[in-house]
Amino acid sequence: MKAAVLRAVGAPISVEPLELEPPRAGEVRVRIAAAGVCHSDYHFVTGDLSTPLPAVLGHEGAGVVEEVGEDVTSVVPGDHVLFLWRTSCGRCALCQTGRPALCTTGLKTRSMGLLADGSTRLSHGGERIHHVLGVSCFAEQAVVSERSVLKIAATVPLEVAALIGCAVMTGVGAVVNTAAVRPGSSVLVIGAGGVGQCVVMGARLAGASTIVVADVSANKLRAATALGATDAVDSSSEDLVKAVRARTSGGVEYAFEAVGRPDTLSQAVRALRPGGTAVAVGLGKGDARVEVGINDLVLQEKTLRGSLYGSARPAADIPMLISLYMTGRLPLDELLSRRYALEQINEAYQAMLGGDVARSVVTFAT
Amino acid sequence: MKAAVLRAVGAPISVEPLELEPPRAGEVRVRIAAAGVCHSDYHFVTGDLSTPLPAVLGHEGAGVVEEVGEDVTSVVPGDHVLFLWRTSCGRCALCQTGRPALCTTGLKTRSMGLLADGSTRLSHGGERIHHVLGVSCFAEQAVVSERSVLKIAATVPLEVAALIGCAVMTGVGAVVNTAAVRPGSSVLVIGAGGVGQCVVMGARLAGASTIVVADVSANKLRAATALGATDAVDSSSEDLVKAVRARTSGGVEYAFEAVGRPDTLSQAVRALRPGGTAVAVGLGKGDARVEVGINDLVLQEKTLRGSLYGSARPAADIPMLISLYMTGRLPLDELLSRRYALEQINEAYQAMLGGDVARSVVTFAT
Repeated sequence: MKAAVLRAVGAPISVEPLELEPPRAGEVRVRIAAAGVCHSDYHFVTGDLSTPLPAVLGHEGAGVVEEVGEDVTSVVPGDHVLFLWRTSCGRCALCQTGRPALCTTGLKTRSMGLLADGSTRLSHGGERIHHVLGVSCFAEQAVVSERSVLKIAATVPLEVAALIGCAVMTGVGAVVNTAAVRPGSSVLVIGAGGVGQCVVMGARLAGASTIVVADVSANKLRAATALGATDAVDSSSEDLVKAVRARTSGGVEYAFEAVGRPDTLSQAVRALRPGGTAVAVGLGKGDARVEVGINDLVLQEKTLRGSLYGSARPAADIPMLISLYMTGRLPLDELLSRRYALEQINEAYQAMLGGDVARSVVTFAT
Repeated sequence: MKAAVLRAVGAPISVEPLELEPPRAGEVRVRIAAAGVCHSDYHFVTGDLSTPLPAVLGHEGAGVVEEVGEDVTSVVPGDHVLFLWRTSCGRCALCQTGRPALCTTGLKTRSMGLLADGSTRLSHGGERIHHVLGVSCFAEQAVVSERSVLKIAATVPLEVAALIGCAVMTGVGAVVNTAAVRPGSSVLVIGAGGVGQCVVMGARLAGASTIVVADVSANKLRAATALGATDAVDSSSEDLVKAVRARTSGGVEYAFEAVGRPDTLSQAVRALRPGGTAVAVGLGKGDARVEVGINDLVLQEKTLRGSLYGSARPAADIPMLISLYMTGRLPLDELLSRRYALEQINEAYQAMLGGDVARSVVTFAT
């Protein structure tokens, strides 16, 4: 099968024929229909985040189960599924207190580029190829743990399902789970890429009355406005904090940073009104640090919190997101910017980096 | 009357005879019984926080109302009261959503060292002397807004009441209001001064099962242990984060920083387990900034939040704290380290800076 392989930090991604072993106990083989072009994967390309190489990229995808290993109970061949890039055990304290996204099950093997049993199913003429985040879905097929897939209805377009598994869960979840934004709130969204657009949709869904979006791309600002943002700030030409304060009588109740940069995360905190909450959604470069004024925190009782995967409780949240999409409450078709073939993967990343594209997918003939 | 006046940043505090005007409409005159020696006042002495000078220091106190101005409805002469250094209007959105400590009523005049009508009641041979935080209770008497006092039962020792008005509200409130610590939690308290000791008491009250206290003073660590801390870390000889992780299987659910320094606040965040919350309680030097790893926040879903005055809702919280003290659930008598006469104010601050004293009071013959 064909797959997109990263062989070295900084190298172009190469599309190569690979061998894929069949699923072992507790694993499934999925034929991929669509895989999203997410910036997190690109952190592996630049080396800002590290993963063992060579590896097949891709962690946001959906497809159809073709084969299941022994002891698999949650899906059967023919089931439509989307991928989850965090697995959870269901038995630990974090899982049982509503925070399965923080479960450490499989974290160690995942960070080693392996599946849960400590090996990979991917190879190239005898050379071992690693998985990324236990998924590796920039490929025609993927073998993953049963815990890394969630069954969805066959009526959900698989392109959209792919995005729901990462960008949508991350962005909407940051609003409704992590921050629990209330109706009538004022919200700032910094960064209008794929996740940022999902934050805008989540804020609108949650009933926010003011949604200020900030970006340096006029196209992205326009797209965010179409999705429900009430104000747009071009932060290439305006001072972000001043502009937000001017548009919101002194600051917002919630600020979401979907970029992952120290300067924009610091702006998110400064743009808050007293009592406000800033949510860090974007992953940063490995050791990037944000600076926050201590007295700004204390005297204004501000909160800064991280949101991982939208504080996902996938079994509850993914069906909710799908239902909201199917009933027209989450316009996810608008999120999907462009479609690429697997061979165009480098082109797809260049378009993302170019800054005018919110979320694209790589699609596969099925 | 005699009062402790700060005439210039860095100068010794001078005890001087001052003239005190009678209360105007909405104001009361209180004969001070006791005033706490809080580090926040000392920030004005060093210039780390600024307030117009010359000014009478002191914002944590209690006494007996002797005279009330026109339109005062909440107290009468003879009532025992403690001072509140934040006033609230009761009518704004912050007040009505449970956050009166963030109300901006009087903030502007307070920051100018004045009472609400824009003037002072304090003078020295015609020279205008400023109030600090609308209170100025290092003095035999104080004239303050009715909103700056809260009536308490005459059975409450006024020395203890003084501390309840600031240190106790700030420390216990950070635990029970800001963080809402749950029974069985693991808690770290960095800094075992007056406020830190109150955080320890609050954590014990809230049912925390592990309470690690960190300080550089063996005396303070011993005192905190007597109040309920289960583990003590001498951070002058141990790596704080490593020591906490070792004692708590990988980190705490809540960390309170009662020092106000960038390095200790950063340690509070790093000492958290996934999903944990760090609470900044201590005010920092004017523009001090804390550095936090973005991916530590996001990947571990950590939260950093400021707590001002323990997120006080004084009308509810002060009676609760008093009731807990009177029934033996908050051992506030243990908090009171030493007593000084007003003339010993500089000595009292030197003892505080010396590092072995949690909370002292200046007492007045009444």
